Amino acid sequence: MFRNSMPRYEVLSADAMAALDQGWRRLVSEIGVEFMSDRALDLFRAAGQRVEDNAVFFDPDFVLEQLAKAPREFDVAARNPEHSIHIGGDAMAFGAVYGPPFVRQGEVRRDATMEDFRAFTKLAQSFPVLDSAGGVICEPNDTPLDSRHLDMTLALQTLTDKVYMGNVVSGVNARDTIEMSAILFGGRDVIERTPVTISLINCNSPLRWDDRMLEAQFEYSAANQPVVLTPFLLMGAMSPVTVPAALVQQMAEAFTGIALSQLIRPGCPVIFGSFLSNINMQSGSPTFGTPESGLGLLCTGQIARHFGLPFRSGGAMTSSQVPDAQAGYEALMTMLPTFLAGTNWVMHAAGWLDGGLVASYEKFVIDVELVQMLQAQFKPLEIDEASLAFDAHQEVGHGGHFLGAAHTMERFRTCFYRPLLSSSDNYERWMRGGGVDAAGRATKIYQQRLAEYERPPLDDAVRAELEDYVQRRRKELGD
Amino acid sequence: MFRNSMPRYEVLSADAMAALDQGWRRLVSEIGVEFMSDRALDLFRAAGQRVEDNAVFFDPDFVLEQLAKAPREFDVAARNPEHSIHIGGDAMAFGAVYGPPFVRQGEVRRDATMEDFRAFTKLAQSFPVLDSAGGVICEPNDTPLDSRHLDMTLALQTLTDKVYMGNVVSGVNARDTIEMSAILFGGRDVIERTPVTISLINCNSPLRWDDRMLEAQFEYSAANQPVVLTPFLLMGAMSPVTVPAALVQQMAEAFTGIALSQLIRPGCPVIFGSFLSNINMQSGSPTFGTPESGLGLLCTGQIARHFGLPFRSGGAMTSSQVPDAQAGYEALMTMLPTFLAGTNWVMHAAGWLDGGLVASYEKFVIDVELVQMLQAQFKPLEIDEASLAFDAHQEVGHGGHFLGAAHTMERFRTCFYRPLLSSSDNYERWMRGGGVDAAGRATKIYQQRLAEYERPPLDDAVRAELEDYVQRRRKELGD
Repeated sequence: MFRNSMPRYEVLSADAMAALDQGWRRLVSEIGVEFMSDRALDLFRAAGQRVEDNAVFFDPDFVLEQLAKAPREFDVAARNPEHSIHIGGDAMAFGAVYGPPFVRQGEVRRDATMEDFRAFTKLAQSFPVLDSAGGVICEPNDTPLDSRHLDMTLALQTLTDKVYMGNVVSGVNARDTIEMSAILFGGRDVIERTPVTISLINCNSPLRWDDRMLEAQFEYSAANQPVVLTPFLLMGAMSPVTVPAALVQQMAEAFTGIALSQLIRPGCPVIFGSFLSNINMQSGSPTFGTPESGLGLLCTGQIARHFGLPFRSGGAMTSSQVPDAQAGYEALMTMLPTFLAGTNWVMHAAGWLDGGLVASYEKFVIDVELVQMLQAQFKPLEIDEASLAFDAHQEVGHGGHFLGAAHTMERFRTCFYRPLLSSSDNYERWMRGGGVDAAGRATKIYQQRLAEYERPPLDDAVRAELEDYVQRRRKELGD
Repeated sequence: MFRNSMPRYEVLSADAMAALDQGWRRLVSEIGVEFMSDRALDLFRAAGQRVEDNAVFFDPDFVLEQLAKAPREFDVAARNPEHSIHIGGDAMAFGAVYGPPFVRQGEVRRDATMEDFRAFTKLAQSFPVLDSAGGVICEPNDTPLDSRHLDMTLALQTLTDKVYMGNVVSGVNARDTIEMSAILFGGRDVIERTPVTISLINCNSPLRWDDRMLEAQFEYSAANQPVVLTPFLLMGAMSPVTVPAALVQQMAEAFTGIALSQLIRPGCPVIFGSFLSNINMQSGSPTFGTPESGLGLLCTGQIARHFGLPFRSGGAMTSSQVPDAQAGYEALMTMLPTFLAGTNWVMHAAGWLDGGLVASYEKFVIDVELVQMLQAQFKPLEIDEASLAFDAHQEVGHGGHFLGAAHTMERFRTCFYRPLLSSSDNYERWMRGGGVDAAGRATKIYQQRLAEYERPPLDDAVRAELEDYVQRRRKELGD
């Protein structure tokens, strides 16, 4: 997996950090945070926090005591050990887009299906730069709602051998994910020792954690599976329009969600989540890849490090409807800050289009190219006698060229990043090749990847047990 | 003009900087740098440097003494004082693409004409985010070669009231630019007091400065007009394939070019230039927006600051043939590091396509959007009671929304960057609008800007004098 050993780009002064620190303390103690779950309220009450109706008014120092119990870094195992990942420190892990109900394939935009879900899962498996297919890579609208999570989890477990995300629609779904994970990895004790899933718990911002998400959180935290406590902030709608206000709200929400996990199971792994962008104040539409979201991302990383928490943020977001120039630059407007901030867990790293409503086959390939390029860029320079190449200058002299120099010949295969998608063909050559733009070339690439896909090996008995489980549970759920 | 008061992103350790420092010293003293000009060689010889044939073998400390004479920062006046710029420090100035022989307009790629030159100049005037139309915004191939520089300079002087670049094809062209500038600004003494042009002197890398460029440099430096001494490095062709080698070569070339300017006129303004990318080692094509060039850019900024020099780098480069997703992400792969490095003089900031062979109308608009977005992003957060918005939370409460909150209503017009080009329309609205992608929307934007263009006012007598000069010189040059 990728380790980002370049410096972090930090933009908050010590004074700014102190002001933000005061901000979240004031929010959690004076406005409080709502938890729509009696179990959660009971835990907080028992821990000495003031509870009124569903609102918990926190002692900020109590919250920090809970945060201190969470591990700063941890491992998540994949069934192929080569694909296991580390969360925290300088490690960065990348998962595909999460949640779109629609897909775009060339000129066609339509409802996503289970076949799409499987196809995207295969694509995620086929690109080494992705550490995970994610979870809800698209919504398989042609499968029954109650048992859909079983089909999705089975696909993630069998079509990839990478880390996958857990279903969070309800506590029931979470339990099924945990059961199936126990089957795949050889028992609940095994997955409690080293977690094998990551699950996304979104806040119903502002300052409210909803019951269904909390039910899932209870299951995952109890099973020692990491949850990403994520304030869902589109500034102007779910948070005030100013970045500092969004940051303190994000801290208040994420920190209190994390505190809950530490009450459920002290020491269980958590990830400080961030999903931070803004709306277009003229139309109310969500916007992505904006200056404000990029700035917020840089601050989020610095805040997470300040509090010793691994964090999730970033991705390849765009508001564009098609994989055009806007999709390219907006994706990078988020993805480059994602690297500058050293984001540990990067959801939506491939395939996001149309504000997250669409999983795009072409955009998937574009985004993989971006992640690959940035992984190549975020490597410290090696400066030594060989890389300074004095001998090459002695060989080439003034006004010459280095194409045939010995220094070049020894390195030409690996010296530069080799693109997956980008073309540097000159005009004549590009026209001879059909004059195909990046989106058109992406079509060919994903089709070829799917054609060449090979299912990673899996023990037949385990596969059968998983399939039995799905069949049994599907019946029990009435589908 | 824009001031970048965000932190710089620096990736070189002190040890790395020391190794690079040793590297350029070794190059200039042991390999030497060629100057294809007797005047230059005479100056270096008189200053005590060893000269053999055209190669000068430098005492590195002598080079540093010359660098120390160059101003760290300086002003460049525009004929509209509101458009005057500062070069150095935290100031960043942006000019359009420079040099393309072709243009692309929608689906059409063709030879550039004088009419294109004028149209791009008008576009540069119409976008406040651009500080300059640059110089050779495209090559007007339908005008006679000998007198073309007169038409271009006249267009830059009359169709914009911003800073413009000087012609560098020859000493004769440079003299004409200086004469015309003296007419526009009221005398040679005036422009010698505060410079009014910036001129690009490219190195014939590796390690050779050619005669025609040096002739132009002699004219501009003598007239106290800033020159950008720019190593032209496509790694693998004009420099070794390793970034550290490219960096030390860049230092050796730029530093010795700057030393020459300081011998021509001590204290004259100079800019440390960088044009640093790489070739595709499989095809030999130049590539842009690459990981290696982004890393080189970040290092270049740090080096320039280390030696107290204002610097030029970056832009909106791409190898793409069309304004597609690749054009979008490659442009930003260079433009975002351009801001992270705090580049003082940014050429190629709008319109670059096809490795710089094409000036694209659509890409021009895309790039203006990128510069606007980044100028919005690179502003430090203001953190105070108002921006922390505690009152908004008191008003909205848990699970509410901020759309109608007083805090929002007071700020909704200016709180977020408002895009020029990017669309956040939802699918239905976007389809009703014709389903037009970013390139298609860019067409409408540049056409509207040209339709609405107004020529900035200019004294009739000055205009007449400039036109007389052009007419007279055209005759003298035999066109």
